[in-house]
Amino acid sequence: MSLFKTLPLALCLFIVTAFKTDDKSNISNTETSVQKDPLPSWNEGAAKKAIIAFVSNATNSKSSQFIPVEDRIATFDNDGTLWSEQPAYFQLFFAIDRVKAMAKDHPEWKNQQPYKAILENDMEALKQSGMKGILQIVATTHTGMTTNEFEAVVKSWASTAKHPTKNVPYTDMVFQPMLELLHYLRANQFKTYIVSGGGVNFMRAFLPSIYGIPEEQIIGTRFKTEWINDGDKPIIKVLPELEFNDDKEGKPLNIQKIIGKKPVFAAGNSDGDLQMLQWTASNKLNSFMLYVHHTDAEREWAYDRESHIGGLDKGLDEATKHGWTLVDMKKDWKVIYPKYQ
Amino acid sequence: MSLFKTLPLALCLFIVTAFKTDDKSNISNTETSVQKDPLPSWNEGAAKKAIIAFVSNATNSKSSQFIPVEDRIATFDNDGTLWSEQPAYFQLFFAIDRVKAMAKDHPEWKNQQPYKAILENDMEALKQSGMKGILQIVATTHTGMTTNEFEAVVKSWASTAKHPTKNVPYTDMVFQPMLELLHYLRANQFKTYIVSGGGVNFMRAFLPSIYGIPEEQIIGTRFKTEWINDGDKPIIKVLPELEFNDDKEGKPLNIQKIIGKKPVFAAGNSDGDLQMLQWTASNKLNSFMLYVHHTDAEREWAYDRESHIGGLDKGLDEATKHGWTLVDMKKDWKVIYPKYQ
Repeated sequence: MSLFKTLPLALCLFIVTAFKTDDKSNISNTETSVQKDPLPSWNEGAAKKAIIAFVSNATNSKSSQFIPVEDRIATFDNDGTLWSEQPAYFQLFFAIDRVKAMAKDHPEWKNQQPYKAILENDMEALKQSGMKGILQIVATTHTGMTTNEFEAVVKSWASTAKHPTKNVPYTDMVFQPMLELLHYLRANQFKTYIVSGGGVNFMRAFLPSIYGIPEEQIIGTRFKTEWINDGDKPIIKVLPELEFNDDKEGKPLNIQKIIGKKPVFAAGNSDGDLQMLQWTASNKLNSFMLYVHHTDAEREWAYDRESHIGGLDKGLDEATKHGWTLVDMKKDWKVIYPKYQ
Repeated sequence: MSLFKTLPLALCLFIVTAFKTDDKSNISNTETSVQKDPLPSWNEGAAKKAIIAFVSNATNSKSSQFIPVEDRIATFDNDGTLWSEQPAYFQLFFAIDRVKAMAKDHPEWKNQQPYKAILENDMEALKQSGMKGILQIVATTHTGMTTNEFEAVVKSWASTAKHPTKNVPYTDMVFQPMLELLHYLRANQFKTYIVSGGGVNFMRAFLPSIYGIPEEQIIGTRFKTEWINDGDKPIIKVLPELEFNDDKEGKPLNIQKIIGKKPVFAAGNSDGDLQMLQWTASNKLNSFMLYVHHTDAEREWAYDRESHIGGLDKGLDEATKHGWTLVDMKKDWKVIYPKYQ
């Protein structure tokens, strides 16, 4: 099993440190009822202007940059692009919460690493359990059950769990400007997809209603599965073995496998999205490449080249070199989250 | 490489025999302009009645059998369900035609099996080349090029190639009643998918406009692919190694991986579709399972339990046992093909 080597989730182990309490006092409401402006939470500026010009041309049949409806494929990374990803990918918090929830049926975990570390909130010990430990936690919390069972578990978690420092539901930590962008693209007959390194079954369980993106337009990392049919009640069981890592070159490869068309619009925030943006940039049709640059330490987090999570280094250079749109969260976004600041 | 063992294409080797000339004299036109009847090429009978009742209930919000729009997923097998598959899967004819077209650049093939057999139309010798021979032909004709290059090759073939006995374009050998069924479902907000043992890149190259099903709703057998990016012109290359065989239990597994929802409607014609129908039948929502039964030796072909291609044996028993809809081509369909009989 090469699960750990490739699973981005694993990286976050090194980031799960003592959680700081962030300032949540600066609450403001988002503008959702402005009629003329399709992107009301975006400040006027180069990024907003470029997006609107792209969509206007794509939908103008007289423009040389017109895009036929069937080719209007838009792919979005999730972690760090559509919602926050600090201090660790939210899926890791799910795994940690899940171990705690399962512990009552596993009294032996009290004395067994890496479970003991989680139950005692000892992140240092969890770190020390290394790759083997994370692998064990992911297998325990994400596999060995049917797809239906996993879906129910994630749904329940998403409806109650809160972010460790912001202390709000994870589902409140989506980016309001990106929700508007998704809506704007769909209103112009773009088909919006998520293409994420996160687990596909994890995302499908609760993100469709948040983003307005149906399950079948969510692409992600997945485990092997097994068909079991004893009699008339078939089930599909998730096995503890990675089948496809939807990160870096895995993104365009999966887009080609599953969608079968090159996107005309792609948005990401890290070097893990670079190949998806390069693939999109190579489209013969006019295409749009967007990087969300995390520059707002006050309202969200500020990080790029040096970050272990969502590192944006080579991508930052390529974006500059090719003139891709770099969204400066601090300058370009009036609000970050829909429900609070 | 376990390509041959699982690739359904390989089966057809044993069926490619001397081609009989079929009777094509009984030409009739299809009815496409009848307003009230959504399925004008279907004779009145149990199958048509059941389909219309299912769709009427699915779209009636007051019915206990109502299906929310987002759950209206309909999956169709391709070979033998949406178009003919005799005397061999059409994709095998593509491979044979392709070898002939490539031969001018390969003078050595004149003395090299299995190419020699194809160039001399010696199907007996092709048979004798066995698994290894078919593997070689599939690798030669389907892989080792970019996805774009393969698409161009297939498009060109589909626009000129003709069926060996019917002597019409393969694209004319789709089933008019099934085109009407696809259209009827979409008109009632069902999302129609192809889920086929055929090659996904082969189907995507020319079937979308024929069926009204976009590339991203075509699921099939696929090869491994490789991302190559030297500079700013990334390509995806198809490798001669099977990645996923979309047949039997591979169908529901792939549906779960790619669509992430259980279908409410599934149509097939062989035992290779049985697991997809079982998965659909296990939906908590009301669901519809349909088998096309090839009973018309005069207008199409008649075969079921004993056929090496599209064998329907266990599926026939299960359909009877569970009351799934068995479409009797001879009795239920007024016409078979849109353009000729």
